[in-house]
Amino acid sequence: MNNSPITITEAIERIRPADVDAMRRAEMRQLSLTKPPGSLGRLEEVSIRLAGIFGVDQPRIRDKAVIVAAGDHGVVAQGVTGYPQEVTAQMVMNFLGGGAAISVMCRRLGVRQVIVDAGVAADLPSHPELRSLKIGRGTWDISQGPAMSLGQAELCVEAGVNLAVEAIESGADLIATGDMGIGNTTASSAITAAVTGRSSEETTGEGTGRTPEELQYKVAVVRRALEVNSPDASVGLDLLSKVGGFEIGVLTGVVLGTAMMRRAVVVDGFISGAAALVADVLCPTARDYMIASHVSAERGHRAALSHMDLTPLLDLGMRLGEGTGAVLALSIVEVAAACLSEMATFGEAGVSDREQDST
Amino acid sequence: MNNSPITITEAIERIRPADVDAMRRAEMRQLSLTKPPGSLGRLEEVSIRLAGIFGVDQPRIRDKAVIVAAGDHGVVAQGVTGYPQEVTAQMVMNFLGGGAAISVMCRRLGVRQVIVDAGVAADLPSHPELRSLKIGRGTWDISQGPAMSLGQAELCVEAGVNLAVEAIESGADLIATGDMGIGNTTASSAITAAVTGRSSEETTGEGTGRTPEELQYKVAVVRRALEVNSPDASVGLDLLSKVGGFEIGVLTGVVLGTAMMRRAVVVDGFISGAAALVADVLCPTARDYMIASHVSAERGHRAALSHMDLTPLLDLGMRLGEGTGAVLALSIVEVAAACLSEMATFGEAGVSDREQDST
Repeated sequence: MNNSPITITEAIERIRPADVDAMRRAEMRQLSLTKPPGSLGRLEEVSIRLAGIFGVDQPRIRDKAVIVAAGDHGVVAQGVTGYPQEVTAQMVMNFLGGGAAISVMCRRLGVRQVIVDAGVAADLPSHPELRSLKIGRGTWDISQGPAMSLGQAELCVEAGVNLAVEAIESGADLIATGDMGIGNTTASSAITAAVTGRSSEETTGEGTGRTPEELQYKVAVVRRALEVNSPDASVGLDLLSKVGGFEIGVLTGVVLGTAMMRRAVVVDGFISGAAALVADVLCPTARDYMIASHVSAERGHRAALSHMDLTPLLDLGMRLGEGTGAVLALSIVEVAAACLSEMATFGEAGVSDREQDST
Repeated sequence: MNNSPITITEAIERIRPADVDAMRRAEMRQLSLTKPPGSLGRLEEVSIRLAGIFGVDQPRIRDKAVIVAAGDHGVVAQGVTGYPQEVTAQMVMNFLGGGAAISVMCRRLGVRQVIVDAGVAADLPSHPELRSLKIGRGTWDISQGPAMSLGQAELCVEAGVNLAVEAIESGADLIATGDMGIGNTTASSAITAAVTGRSSEETTGEGTGRTPEELQYKVAVVRRALEVNSPDASVGLDLLSKVGGFEIGVLTGVVLGTAMMRRAVVVDGFISGAAALVADVLCPTARDYMIASHVSAERGHRAALSHMDLTPLLDLGMRLGEGTGAVLALSIVEVAAACLSEMATFGEAGVSDREQDST
């Protein structure tokens, strides 16, 4: 276990591309397993990617964890959301109390839940399961200026790196990302527009709002945030400090830290996707370690996924965040690895393989 | 526990429509849970269906089981498959030995595996986990005449009903279906064509075959099976006896038995879909109890699903059978129920609900 925290620069330097040899061996092994070749569809593709990520041809999953980062957003002052800001803190307590969707899922699916106060705008009671970073008390209003200082952006990402390292060192081989933050779809829309080059219309969805008028207004707020701040989309920390969020920065770090540790990061929906985009800007090789769990119903998520060439495993019309899509996909990813590593080969099971080509 | 087996007629008489009142209460409860309304997407829809199936507004899932039925098909004499017939028996042994994809998945996901020899064309050693029905030693060649006698068709379905009842009485609240049988995509294509009114071209896919010539030949065999037998698509047992299979009949019974017990049957891919079509013919109300797990890459499956108005949860390009798609979906269905039943309401968690409409 490392005592001094890993810096962002160290993490990025240590991220290596996926192991192509291990992938080739896994691909060969898939052909020897007792099933018609390709019949497990995307599970086979995921298993081969996992081999490349872990650097072994038979990856084994011990434990699974979701890191759920929470933070508040000053832009709520613009009236872009359907829920009041205090809901962020209330939902963190709901996570800890076990009543939120993510908590129910983690219990059912055997996933460790790591709850992080990245920058909630309220005092939260101390709780043994709450990791308090408190990098700020909510971001500033991105429609007026930058979300946070460059130093704060660095702190978020570095904290995320080290949270991932800690989760992996204590046994987790699959890391899911999750978010909570009233107003964070607005920040994510701005990040997604900046990185993918799409317009704010294309990257802004309803979030928790309801009416077409609310949506149009939110699009304008996102546009203003980009105009006011002019983030440099090729500089991850500039982007994050100008139009990001504390929880988004932590999740960016989680992606980098997981990639550095050669484990798979299962990315949730729109907010986590924006965090992954920032990680991708900081270190394009990190993409090798990302598995897209689901496509969110939130507009803009497809743009983020296609920018990173990621094809989601699930499409269930979900748009809750919290890591709920990622945790559902964890089981599929785990099973993909288990099939590759634990299925019998034709030889081992005494099963006749397909007849040889007569040609 | 019932000592005398339940007959098909009894099962059908006891199948009642889903409980609409419970569904309405579940829908109301969804609106009170700590998340934006609708944000769990299809999980909410599934949870409401489960409420209707179980007849309670907070369905609880105790145990999950997959019933994997195996049988052989005389039509393999026509050379329609890539694997020799002995693979059916070999794969049953692989299920029991834990080396097959379905066994690996069941271990990982905590699902009970019930393996059934419905009519394998080989002697299988007795095994504590193998249910031996042996209704025949493979069907007759459906391209020459009926697959089995009407009496055998009845025996299959009745056995399936009672297997489902037994699994549910011993604790399973979700039943997944699975199949194994070299040649069974040919029988399933015939059933799907007969019930949906589509041509054999539209319902016949590669199965385990490879070349376009093999596929064309298989289409012709399916067409011949339908011409030779002229099954009455409105009479389930006629259909099953003429162009079905022993394992398909057992799975038809599993669907009916699960519906009778007011539990959810999570239907696997193309073969299980054909079995569900036969159940749907025998008792259209049974459809209320079916959840489509995934859409198979096997051509014809979409036709079966759309005929029954079922929308699959997963689309992962899988085409293995064995119940692999259904077992993956079990976790999603279980989580859907758990979210409905175990999430905190806004009131319970002290979370502020959305602001009221100002209109």
